Amino acid sequence: MTDLPDTYRRLVSTVTSEGQVKLSLQEMPLPSLNEDDVLVRVEATPINPSDLAVLLALTDGTQFTRDGDAATAPLNPAVQRALSARAGVDLPVGNEGAGEVVAAGQSPAAQALIGKTVALAGGGFYAQYRKVRAADCMIVPEGTSAEEGASSYVNPLTALGMVGTMKREGYSGLVHTAAASNLGQMLVKLCAADGVPLVNIVRSEAQASLLRDLGAEHVVDMTADDFLPKLIDAIAATNAYLAFDAVGGGKLAGQILTAMEQAALRTQRADGPYGSRQMKQVYLYGGLSPAPTEFNRGFGMRWRMGGWLLTYFLEDIGSDAAKDLRDRVARELKTTFASKYTKRIALSEMLDPETIAAFGKRATGEKYLVMPQR
Amino acid sequence: MTDLPDTYRRLVSTVTSEGQVKLSLQEMPLPSLNEDDVLVRVEATPINPSDLAVLLALTDGTQFTRDGDAATAPLNPAVQRALSARAGVDLPVGNEGAGEVVAAGQSPAAQALIGKTVALAGGGFYAQYRKVRAADCMIVPEGTSAEEGASSYVNPLTALGMVGTMKREGYSGLVHTAAASNLGQMLVKLCAADGVPLVNIVRSEAQASLLRDLGAEHVVDMTADDFLPKLIDAIAATNAYLAFDAVGGGKLAGQILTAMEQAALRTQRADGPYGSRQMKQVYLYGGLSPAPTEFNRGFGMRWRMGGWLLTYFLEDIGSDAAKDLRDRVARELKTTFASKYTKRIALSEMLDPETIAAFGKRATGEKYLVMPQR
Repeated sequence: MTDLPDTYRRLVSTVTSEGQVKLSLQEMPLPSLNEDDVLVRVEATPINPSDLAVLLALTDGTQFTRDGDAATAPLNPAVQRALSARAGVDLPVGNEGAGEVVAAGQSPAAQALIGKTVALAGGGFYAQYRKVRAADCMIVPEGTSAEEGASSYVNPLTALGMVGTMKREGYSGLVHTAAASNLGQMLVKLCAADGVPLVNIVRSEAQASLLRDLGAEHVVDMTADDFLPKLIDAIAATNAYLAFDAVGGGKLAGQILTAMEQAALRTQRADGPYGSRQMKQVYLYGGLSPAPTEFNRGFGMRWRMGGWLLTYFLEDIGSDAAKDLRDRVARELKTTFASKYTKRIALSEMLDPETIAAFGKRATGEKYLVMPQR
Repeated sequence: MTDLPDTYRRLVSTVTSEGQVKLSLQEMPLPSLNEDDVLVRVEATPINPSDLAVLLALTDGTQFTRDGDAATAPLNPAVQRALSARAGVDLPVGNEGAGEVVAAGQSPAAQALIGKTVALAGGGFYAQYRKVRAADCMIVPEGTSAEEGASSYVNPLTALGMVGTMKREGYSGLVHTAAASNLGQMLVKLCAADGVPLVNIVRSEAQASLLRDLGAEHVVDMTADDFLPKLIDAIAATNAYLAFDAVGGGKLAGQILTAMEQAALRTQRADGPYGSRQMKQVYLYGGLSPAPTEFNRGFGMRWRMGGWLLTYFLEDIGSDAAKDLRDRVARELKTTFASKYTKRIALSEMLDPETIAAFGKRATGEKYLVMPQR
């Protein structure tokens, strides 16, 4: 291990007492390893929407200015209270990544990993090196690169979590919004493989074509004049009474419940003024729109809305079931769970105001991969 | 049974093809009885908010005009689609009531009820007579009048259903809105009797005093400047993470979730950007405000909102458990589950435009009792 440096660089996000969010690069000593630890040289780590929430501290990323090894932006006063718990704390960022194991503790399990390419989750991957426990490493299959393994957790497990939630809660079809996203494309492939009826809601005809080319059967464009009737048709055809909504704000979640109710009323009578007896549910798992969520309750009394978080889903199913899901991801990393990246950037570029504004847009079809060794 | 008339009057609500809602009195032949049926002379039947939804067809009751034995009002065009299932159907109205059994079929169970005062649910009680099955009659305890038994189902079982839902879903305290209502006062007494921590949200200081006089410990006035901090304090003091909201529209449901989250964060750290791990839930069981429901999702990822309907709760717990609840209501009809009425009206007065506008207001503290024998 003579080629290891004494220090490495990592990126942290800090909410300051001056009402700003600061991104900075810190030079850190290489950590010492306990017997079950390994040191991973991080080769590739994606920027997911869930990373942006921490990284940008709920700002939109357009107001950063750079000063040396740091970039700062003013916080939105409306969310400062929500961020008070992280005031003054340097938070490492980057939920997942992949790289090579370059050093290991004395345990056989740790030693066995030396030289392997592994995929990881757990935070702090916007860094050149990361210490992890050997047991937390997913060895990527022979012939799979670190780049191909970089997104092995968040999106694949979220897609599997949506299908798993559907089964656990007794539904038999899914509605998905912002469905042309990297995650959405994965869900199209997964649902096709598993025979799960899926209604995809997208924001343009171009996105609709992209999903149809992937084999999606039901795609509805929410910018079209006939969005609601088409959505009702698609739900009636699929019995998709559970939705996962990445948008969060605005009227979309309520429109989905309304369309579900109208679809249900095609085959059953309303129960007096209380609507259909069909349970209808929307999980808000993202917040692409920061606007308030708004709905008019025109969908009877059997409905639910709620938050959904991958962490909680994995806790709920237990560690054995979670391991089965991770094993499946590893097996299908080049097929069902393959990610595409449109931009590759160095760690230092994450402090560049224009770059921050670009990935902060969360534009569908744009996916950034950070390469900390550049 | 020589004193029985050949016909009786009942009130029906009809959505017409001209886009109106029509209330009318119909003269009906007295029904024939099968061996297990009894005929009840309806003495008293309340106007509950759940009756108004059917009766007024989602109008506010201010635009009725009377023409003989009918009164009509224009429908709100926005809700006509939701009402399409009832177009042209004469709907009997009145969810519950009480009266004397004046005729019975040949079965011993039916014959045994003759002369008894019974309380009933099942719809169509805005009528002078109502045929029901003997098995569906709740005999009111000795010394209890029909008026005292008129509201034996909807409000008592809803209050019991709220406490029951709390226990089934693993919560240990309740938040209730529009808490000075007849139902709210019942819930204050029930929670005191059962040792359930309860946070009451009211709309004036007068309502707050009324509930405190009933023994309510936690009462928060939503019109006060310090509403949110007081609500957070009350939730923190009671661990009331399940709310039942009668208002439905506007920001209140979201404010309750926000206050629950802030209360939870007093004893636990936020889980990164995802807020507390405390599950927080609001059931919207009424729609006092027809405005859209609106919230800003500033309460982490562990939250739920949904519809709640007494019928579904009773189905979920099963018939034995439902019977236990009804038995308790009968035992405590003069104490925990006593109702107060501020106005008593005849059936024909339900067609009077001023009276319709008055009960259509759903004003807290105003409770109408219909006396069909007047």
